[in-house]
Amino acid sequence: MAIEFKVVKESKESSARLGELKTPHGIVETPVFMPVGTRATVKAMTPEEVRDLGAQIILSNTYHLYLRPGHKLIEEAGGLHKFMNWNGPILTDSGGYQVFSLGDLRKITEEGVEFRSHIDGSKHFISPEKSIEIQNALGADIIMAFDECTPYPVSYEYAKRSMERTSRWAKRCKDYHNNWEKQALFGIVQGGMYRDLREQSAKDIIDIGFPGYAIGGLSVGEPRDLMCQVLDYTVPLLPEDKPRYLMGVGTPDYLFEAVIRGIDMADCVEPTRIARNGTVMTSQGRINIRNAKYTKDFSPLDPECDCYTCKNYSRAYIRHLFNVKEILAARLATTHNLYFILKLMENIREAIKEDRLLEYREEFYKKYGYID
Amino acid sequence: MAIEFKVVKESKESSARLGELKTPHGIVETPVFMPVGTRATVKAMTPEEVRDLGAQIILSNTYHLYLRPGHKLIEEAGGLHKFMNWNGPILTDSGGYQVFSLGDLRKITEEGVEFRSHIDGSKHFISPEKSIEIQNALGADIIMAFDECTPYPVSYEYAKRSMERTSRWAKRCKDYHNNWEKQALFGIVQGGMYRDLREQSAKDIIDIGFPGYAIGGLSVGEPRDLMCQVLDYTVPLLPEDKPRYLMGVGTPDYLFEAVIRGIDMADCVEPTRIARNGTVMTSQGRINIRNAKYTKDFSPLDPECDCYTCKNYSRAYIRHLFNVKEILAARLATTHNLYFILKLMENIREAIKEDRLLEYREEFYKKYGYID
Repeated sequence: MAIEFKVVKESKESSARLGELKTPHGIVETPVFMPVGTRATVKAMTPEEVRDLGAQIILSNTYHLYLRPGHKLIEEAGGLHKFMNWNGPILTDSGGYQVFSLGDLRKITEEGVEFRSHIDGSKHFISPEKSIEIQNALGADIIMAFDECTPYPVSYEYAKRSMERTSRWAKRCKDYHNNWEKQALFGIVQGGMYRDLREQSAKDIIDIGFPGYAIGGLSVGEPRDLMCQVLDYTVPLLPEDKPRYLMGVGTPDYLFEAVIRGIDMADCVEPTRIARNGTVMTSQGRINIRNAKYTKDFSPLDPECDCYTCKNYSRAYIRHLFNVKEILAARLATTHNLYFILKLMENIREAIKEDRLLEYREEFYKKYGYID
Repeated sequence: MAIEFKVVKESKESSARLGELKTPHGIVETPVFMPVGTRATVKAMTPEEVRDLGAQIILSNTYHLYLRPGHKLIEEAGGLHKFMNWNGPILTDSGGYQVFSLGDLRKITEEGVEFRSHIDGSKHFISPEKSIEIQNALGADIIMAFDECTPYPVSYEYAKRSMERTSRWAKRCKDYHNNWEKQALFGIVQGGMYRDLREQSAKDIIDIGFPGYAIGGLSVGEPRDLMCQVLDYTVPLLPEDKPRYLMGVGTPDYLFEAVIRGIDMADCVEPTRIARNGTVMTSQGRINIRNAKYTKDFSPLDPECDCYTCKNYSRAYIRHLFNVKEILAARLATTHNLYFILKLMENIREAIKEDRLLEYREEFYKKYGYID
């Protein structure tokens, strides 16, 4: 098997746990946040910088890489790790999320999804088998079953039909995948915000059997409390000895709430995307550095932060860079946000180790604000 | 005085020379190429990266910084070095070049230049005194007299009138500057492509007296041979014991020809600007990496280069990054081009030391091509 997972410690105060995930490209300490490198690059950053900021594993996107530069080219280059110069673990999504997000541009059948490229309108077809074929070519350490991530809100009927198809597709993905020694295939639990559908989905996916399980279809616009509820009844359905991955979550409060409910892995474009827009996370909450009030503010983005950006640059300088649209603006803000969120995860792991995660969460919320 | 310059070695085969330029922020070995950080950042790069690539001194632009974020703000921040986190020497231009480039947006009088901002149309006035005031606030190690850089071609009459005004303005700049201990003010020789005007200008400027002399108004569209001719008769007019700075030159062949004629300093946006457009300099000449023929080229940008980019990434990957407009594209190409041009200058200094600059030039041109 490509991966081995072991729970190192279970929290005494919550369902949180510390784990160790061995992959062909190194060991990942969980709970872990995975920065997103959509098109074979974590935007604005070099791989060395991403690693030095504390990233242990990154995520890349099957849909985007399939279209440009093409999975065959990446295979010819020696795989995604070599192509993008990242020697650590990689997880690729299945492309399902992006394809389903295309709206009118896609048509779903039992066989798969026909869609038109958002770039040039060209016609494509991705089936569960095709998704695995692409992900096999990319060569990530962890790959994902091809699923449908239902939006919020969605009718019970649609969520049910979609979840059942996702289960059938999961089986087809498992049957097609033939590179288990190098790539672990994770199954995905869907079912919208409906408890019985989540239960059915978890049962289906676990019956098929995977080395890891993801929870999809959350953080899609629902209130945070609703996400917490779904996690409350879904996570306990998953095997304790396998990694549990909550897809698409990446704000501090969502990460706290997910980890406390037993989640081991999470990913989100949020920290890097908002950075390029000038929004940075600080110990006192979010600020947008483009705001005029920072014009003559010569203090760092976050006085409590010791990242490269905060040690060397002022808010006034970074605001200036955003104001004149300099590339360094995106770099400095991304550096800070990635450091912030990766450091937060490190602190969370430390707090689990010392059985004070709930206390740490309270402290954090008090300064940062509850809802992000 | 803010700077000290000494000629360390004179070439036996040409007018080239090795020099050492002491500034308040460190020693610069000449001949030197100065990367340009227009808006208080060398585009796409951190200061540490620029330094590690071999940059000894950078140039920044008075006009741009005056408009955004404003020289007063930078002064309040503790000066340009601190504001942008570059602790090495800085040279600022006078703003003249940019203001005169505004065309219809500016009006020249003996007093100075009235112009409208290219950003918001707001009205401004820069005189020689104002330029020095701004440059004093920025705090660069070397600052430049406010001059007019005439275009090519230009009539004898205009070139003469402009050159004479530039001389009068140089005097006003010198009179106004009062920070000689920290900032060296350089005079600029103008006069277009007219020998007698260059001679008159050199005489005027040297009579006023500066710790360094620049040659302006070259590399403005004239044939390279014409530039060489002007250098042939202008450089010998300048004092041997002062640094000689050729403004706006930065392609390999122009640098060779300038150094051979006794130039010590040069600057240009070229290496960084073309990089962001996908054009990179290699030992075999320029290539544009966006070209389709590099789609499956898994070799480095330049097989003879050992920069970070060439050691870690393929042409295929960099082409992909440009194709999908990723920020890392600009970073990797800029890294390579800056390394290339700074390494070239290092090789040129080494060749002067060993009296084989002419031979090195021939070798280089044979592979790279004569005209860049």
